[in-house]
Amino acid sequence: MRAVDLIRKKRDGAVLDPAEIAFFVNGVTTGALPEYQASALLMAIVLRGMNAAETVSLTDAMVRSGARVDLSDIPGVKVDKHSTGGVGDKTSLIVAPVVAACGVVVPMMSGRGLGHTGGTLDKLEAIPGFKVDLTLDQLKDRLRANGCAMLGQTPQIAPADKKLYALRDVTGTVESVPLISASIMSKKVAEGIDALVLDVKTGCGAFMKSEPESRRLAESLVSIGLAAGVRTEAVITAMDAPLGRAVGNALEVIECLEVLKGRGPEDVIRVSIELAARMLVLGGVAPNRSEAARRVQHVIDSGEGLDRLRRIVEGQGGDPHVVDDYGRLPSAEGRHMVRASRSGYLTRLDAELVGRASVALGAGRDRIDDDVDPGVGVVVHAKPGVAVTKTEPVLELHYRDPSRLERAIALAAQAVEIGETAGDQRPLLVGEMA
Amino acid sequence: MRAVDLIRKKRDGAVLDPAEIAFFVNGVTTGALPEYQASALLMAIVLRGMNAAETVSLTDAMVRSGARVDLSDIPGVKVDKHSTGGVGDKTSLIVAPVVAACGVVVPMMSGRGLGHTGGTLDKLEAIPGFKVDLTLDQLKDRLRANGCAMLGQTPQIAPADKKLYALRDVTGTVESVPLISASIMSKKVAEGIDALVLDVKTGCGAFMKSEPESRRLAESLVSIGLAAGVRTEAVITAMDAPLGRAVGNALEVIECLEVLKGRGPEDVIRVSIELAARMLVLGGVAPNRSEAARRVQHVIDSGEGLDRLRRIVEGQGGDPHVVDDYGRLPSAEGRHMVRASRSGYLTRLDAELVGRASVALGAGRDRIDDDVDPGVGVVVHAKPGVAVTKTEPVLELHYRDPSRLERAIALAAQAVEIGETAGDQRPLLVGEMA
Repeated sequence: MRAVDLIRKKRDGAVLDPAEIAFFVNGVTTGALPEYQASALLMAIVLRGMNAAETVSLTDAMVRSGARVDLSDIPGVKVDKHSTGGVGDKTSLIVAPVVAACGVVVPMMSGRGLGHTGGTLDKLEAIPGFKVDLTLDQLKDRLRANGCAMLGQTPQIAPADKKLYALRDVTGTVESVPLISASIMSKKVAEGIDALVLDVKTGCGAFMKSEPESRRLAESLVSIGLAAGVRTEAVITAMDAPLGRAVGNALEVIECLEVLKGRGPEDVIRVSIELAARMLVLGGVAPNRSEAARRVQHVIDSGEGLDRLRRIVEGQGGDPHVVDDYGRLPSAEGRHMVRASRSGYLTRLDAELVGRASVALGAGRDRIDDDVDPGVGVVVHAKPGVAVTKTEPVLELHYRDPSRLERAIALAAQAVEIGETAGDQRPLLVGEMA
Repeated sequence: MRAVDLIRKKRDGAVLDPAEIAFFVNGVTTGALPEYQASALLMAIVLRGMNAAETVSLTDAMVRSGARVDLSDIPGVKVDKHSTGGVGDKTSLIVAPVVAACGVVVPMMSGRGLGHTGGTLDKLEAIPGFKVDLTLDQLKDRLRANGCAMLGQTPQIAPADKKLYALRDVTGTVESVPLISASIMSKKVAEGIDALVLDVKTGCGAFMKSEPESRRLAESLVSIGLAAGVRTEAVITAMDAPLGRAVGNALEVIECLEVLKGRGPEDVIRVSIELAARMLVLGGVAPNRSEAARRVQHVIDSGEGLDRLRRIVEGQGGDPHVVDDYGRLPSAEGRHMVRASRSGYLTRLDAELVGRASVALGAGRDRIDDDVDPGVGVVVHAKPGVAVTKTEPVLELHYRDPSRLERAIALAAQAVEIGETAGDQRPLLVGEMA
């Protein structure tokens, strides 16, 4: 097999067979395939697409580039949740302990934030001492002890993905439903889970801006999961404005703790319960979603969810007292309030711009090896659809480095749109794919 | 400027501006642009295309990657001819001396054969002693002495092209009208010529198989030439069957000498006169093409063309006696005749397959650094459209290495198609673009 023939084949719009796709992925993994050939093929894939069978083959080859974790010696059904990424999208820290408290095993491997979106690992690391780098043995140990582990991808998991992603990032080949799907699903399939609930975000703060694109991604993800023997469902949720009121790592941890204490913003609660309920049904501990939702609510109301998170934090080296004392979390002293420039209705609070403001403050990263500041971020005082009066607080910036403030203020101010009428906000749950 | 932004821009079908294209070409030339980014952009160009302005900018940047030769101190109008490549396509060795004998200066920089097509440099090097590697000073000296020099590309000419071509070759990004056009025209513009006649081949033995593709390429080449201040015309000629009766380097030199002696195959003569006549008009030594064709014919009939070739050969270190004594040219002793498998009409003699048979014998190269054997090749005994009887000779293979024969016979046999009726052959001159 010659790489140039594969490239020409895809360039001309033909379908690659599983052996050809495996040749490509193996070549990338071992380095036998020169990067200039890999990137030419990636661009051909971006522009010519891949059908469902090719995407399944690609995912399979990426899974096989590493180990597929065997969790069969852990009793119980293993169910994970994955979000395609958003702003203020913090449901993992709520869903994981709640679902575990309901008796489903949750091995949750997450990623870091990149660009305007946040990442679960960065949020967890805002908790002093929390270790996200677990070995496979430690993962199993935590699953046995707490029914849940929250960790980063281990090096055994889909090593091809890391190499492919690094190349895609610098060659303009990130934006492709099959490549994105295979990247997400290869890691999830390799995790050794039985079932998966996906939260596919749609809107300006999401990777996929339009509903049709998000649907295509959701469809692709679900079909890959099913082909790999992982029962997979997806919900499509709106990411037009930040989810909840906190954007930034420690700020988001606090918001999660509030939700687990029966408080917290309504939108975060709704998405968390939707995802958790689906995980319960897939995990076989509830007969249907409405019963599952009642159980989830009960576990929150009873404090079992909060208690489970405390155990998870402690079990992974974190300070469990943060749960009760938010003062133990990192914070930044500086405050700047972005206020309504006139009276009217807040018609739009652009999630991407709020996310970029938060990155400008240091809460996220533009490049994969940038450091993040766990204490900084943005607090949302007014949500889209509400009436505001001139000078009323809309966004509160928590900053440490004053030199970063100017750019963050400009981005935050740009995110706020005030109009004459309340306007229409689309529903939070845009669609589902099961 | 960031390479990844350029790649994304072209990936999304936008138009690159001259500064962006120059950034790309300079990056490739200096090595500052990683090959994986260059190849991703090349694939995006192949699939998204480039408009006329972009193609002109690309050519211009490639010209500027090296020197533009200044021939202004050589008296006379400088006119070159370039063919997009075919099988048995040997007109350069006829046209160059004839046009020079008519008083036009011909600085002809040519290439080597690759794949199934032959190259002028390989044919010239079949002449013992002939040197194609001239310096710019030697080029000018030869132009002053003989009004003509036939040489390879000097390293000063469009160095970006060499790097880009090497990358395109291994990344499936050769087939693109803008990339092909810029590659051809950057070298021609940098040569310092005033005018150019292009022979764009069309058909199975050509790079462009279909007439519409060939027309697009011809249009693109002509518009680039005009934009660069080079008066440029193109003819589109059929390359369904080999041109003439000789395929292979020394065999083709002999055929050219025959044409210059007033003999030789009619199709070679027709294309050569068409191209030469256009060069005379562009060179200002004939008022129109019919008068120009008469002058070309006269220069052949009088032996001035042959004499000029003898001087060119001698002036570039070659053995001038080959002109009169073909025995001084390399040859291969082995002969194998491919005969008509049945009686009927020769409906097709596939130029690409004959070319590949010739390469299989060693006359051409599959890779840029393969050696060629000047003595081997294929002689065409029957041309498409003629009646043949069973066992009548169609193709005569001249071979040296018997181990290469089997594959060559298979390809040659496959090239021959015999039918019940003569069938239609399209005219040799398919179109023109001036």
